Amino acid sequence: MIPTRADCLALDVADPLAFARERFTVPDGIIYLDGNSLGPLPKATAERLRRTVEEEWGQGLIRSWNEADWINAPARLGAKIARLIGARPHEVVAADSTSVNLYKLAAAAAALRPERSVILTEPGNFPTDLYVLQGLAEQSGHKLRMRTVVRDALMGALDSEVAVLVLTHVHYKSGAVHDMAALTARAHEVGALTVWDLSHSTGALPVELNAAGADFAVGCGYKYLNGGPGAPAFLYVAERWADAARSPLSGWMGHAAPFEFVDDYQPASGVARMLCGTPSILAMAALEAGLATFDGVDMAQVRAKSAALSELFIALVEAKLPGVFELASPREPALRGSQVSLAHPHGYAIMSALIETGVIGDFRAPDILRFGFTPLYTRYVDVFDAVERLCAVMADRRFEHPRYAERAAVT
Amino acid sequence: MIPTRADCLALDVADPLAFARERFTVPDGIIYLDGNSLGPLPKATAERLRRTVEEEWGQGLIRSWNEADWINAPARLGAKIARLIGARPHEVVAADSTSVNLYKLAAAAAALRPERSVILTEPGNFPTDLYVLQGLAEQSGHKLRMRTVVRDALMGALDSEVAVLVLTHVHYKSGAVHDMAALTARAHEVGALTVWDLSHSTGALPVELNAAGADFAVGCGYKYLNGGPGAPAFLYVAERWADAARSPLSGWMGHAAPFEFVDDYQPASGVARMLCGTPSILAMAALEAGLATFDGVDMAQVRAKSAALSELFIALVEAKLPGVFELASPREPALRGSQVSLAHPHGYAIMSALIETGVIGDFRAPDILRFGFTPLYTRYVDVFDAVERLCAVMADRRFEHPRYAERAAVT
Repeated sequence: MIPTRADCLALDVADPLAFARERFTVPDGIIYLDGNSLGPLPKATAERLRRTVEEEWGQGLIRSWNEADWINAPARLGAKIARLIGARPHEVVAADSTSVNLYKLAAAAAALRPERSVILTEPGNFPTDLYVLQGLAEQSGHKLRMRTVVRDALMGALDSEVAVLVLTHVHYKSGAVHDMAALTARAHEVGALTVWDLSHSTGALPVELNAAGADFAVGCGYKYLNGGPGAPAFLYVAERWADAARSPLSGWMGHAAPFEFVDDYQPASGVARMLCGTPSILAMAALEAGLATFDGVDMAQVRAKSAALSELFIALVEAKLPGVFELASPREPALRGSQVSLAHPHGYAIMSALIETGVIGDFRAPDILRFGFTPLYTRYVDVFDAVERLCAVMADRRFEHPRYAERAAVT
Repeated sequence: MIPTRADCLALDVADPLAFARERFTVPDGIIYLDGNSLGPLPKATAERLRRTVEEEWGQGLIRSWNEADWINAPARLGAKIARLIGARPHEVVAADSTSVNLYKLAAAAAALRPERSVILTEPGNFPTDLYVLQGLAEQSGHKLRMRTVVRDALMGALDSEVAVLVLTHVHYKSGAVHDMAALTARAHEVGALTVWDLSHSTGALPVELNAAGADFAVGCGYKYLNGGPGAPAFLYVAERWADAARSPLSGWMGHAAPFEFVDDYQPASGVARMLCGTPSILAMAALEAGLATFDGVDMAQVRAKSAALSELFIALVEAKLPGVFELASPREPALRGSQVSLAHPHGYAIMSALIETGVIGDFRAPDILRFGFTPLYTRYVDVFDAVERLCAVMADRRFEHPRYAERAAVT
């Protein structure tokens, strides 16, 4: 039985997370299946930014570093993120970008294994992760080297040469989920440390860093955390490493006493030592408003709804467009993050035509249409309507129009 | 003749930069002499942020990376900053924090002189600059080492061991200005490269990077550029180095084709290769509004008014409070940035009491009261009134009250 639109509306009525959609602005006519790339605007963000700009900055001026507690924004937001990733509040700070944080932590982890030379990862990992590791290897004078091993061979490739295993928990393109606990355990057996990139996990599914024994992690603030375009990222350092790990980016915000203005660097105790320069307080304010969209939200319910939405999407696509797309994500929902990817040779043109109908997903080269199902604001009926519009795009083959042939800079 | 309040009001009437004060929000009753630490709120910023948040993010969603030109914010803002620092538009990008940018450029410069090991700087340089260089030295396995030499001995210390000279153009505490052209010329004579930190220069006085032959530079967006707390910083790479310099922070925004999602890092041509992760678009929007406060502003007039304001301040303090403070800035205005520092053993308490009168300057350990004179919104009468209030604080010795004894976290 193919679900009907009425079935979907009934599911929305019964949805225990339905209340959360009211926390967001979703433009009229838009079905937004790209919250895994940029979360939509929370309704509370504009007022929070107005207060931060007009009152804290405009009226409080420099005094707001203390009086509005700007100085503690990285730790305060970190503690809120910690709840979503199975970490203790003092193990996480919001800071910099994911790329910069990955550099810090991969370098810090490698320095804790000075006799080893290999940073292990997988080909096709999110590009910036690979690029950052390549830069770190070059910066080390090639004392460190990056080794890429395909996903299925990673367990076997963990050996006594490996200093650090760096993986993205949920793959950006396929949505495939690594077994964090098993890989971390195997890494530790051979004496290696782990750095997990949680960019496509945090806020999308329960993450249990402490339970998995994870050493280090980074992640993104602008996807599922709804912090706005280019929102500050975060980083996690397991308590047991917090006073041993050293950041190569030893800026003043990570100093034990930044306002003493002494000449010699002395790292702060704890994860605060991983801070570097002065953070954007406006960006932090928007991220804090984004994090508030998770207030009172049960991550187990998020995961259950995410699986239900994506199963519904796959079922509808396969029933209504049989043989048209290749499923490029794991079929088993437990092995998938909160997205479904479909492959098609005309993927770019199809996605462009679909966006014109108001269904916003995204395209990833060379042939992937990527659809994110973010349970806080996506309804079952949105999935139904999105597939109807995809059917319309395929039925009249409008995607073959030459105007879709050119790829834009960002897709 | 000590200038009177009427004299100051007359100077304000004749001030060719008086129009610019209308571009800012200055709270009632406040005389803000800390724009060198955090610039005040431009009037246009709130509306610019509202548009970026509600229209570009809220309605445009992910499409705004192209349609609102978010993707070009680093280069677009960089070109606007270039005008203020004597650089070509394509030599500057807005990105990350000053600390992170200094790490990138010091590492890139050192790598261009691989046979040399010394990074030369001065003791008492802005702490984060020293900390970042110490971290870079450690990360290099001490192949690189930081050497500090007092200001007067820097010319003589430039020798064939020096890979890079890293200096802050205007000293954060004293306001003393380095002779950028002479030091750069001497560095080049011995085969060294230069990285200039322009945090206390940009927007405060004319900077001529190209004319000085400078190789690299970084600077801050939240002081004189009025970009908001923790605004994005900027970096400059001289055109002749743009395709040779490599950033150790090789993230995807610096890739030649970031949206091709290939596994191997290939740096973009030009200064764009110094970008790393995804920038905060909200922070970029606020910085762009801050930069607009310089539209139509002649930097020679800024410099002339800055000198006049600070000369007036020194004259009034020395006439009305003779022997009370020690001038901790160069007396010659040409050797000073846009600030005046006064030393006093009770500096912290005095500044705290002065702030309660509405005159906001700041304190720098151990004994410096720092007053910034930012010509876009500071009036001559503000200087007069600020000194009157300082006289009141000193007259009744209220600063000796115990409530001023404790230093706050940020001062």
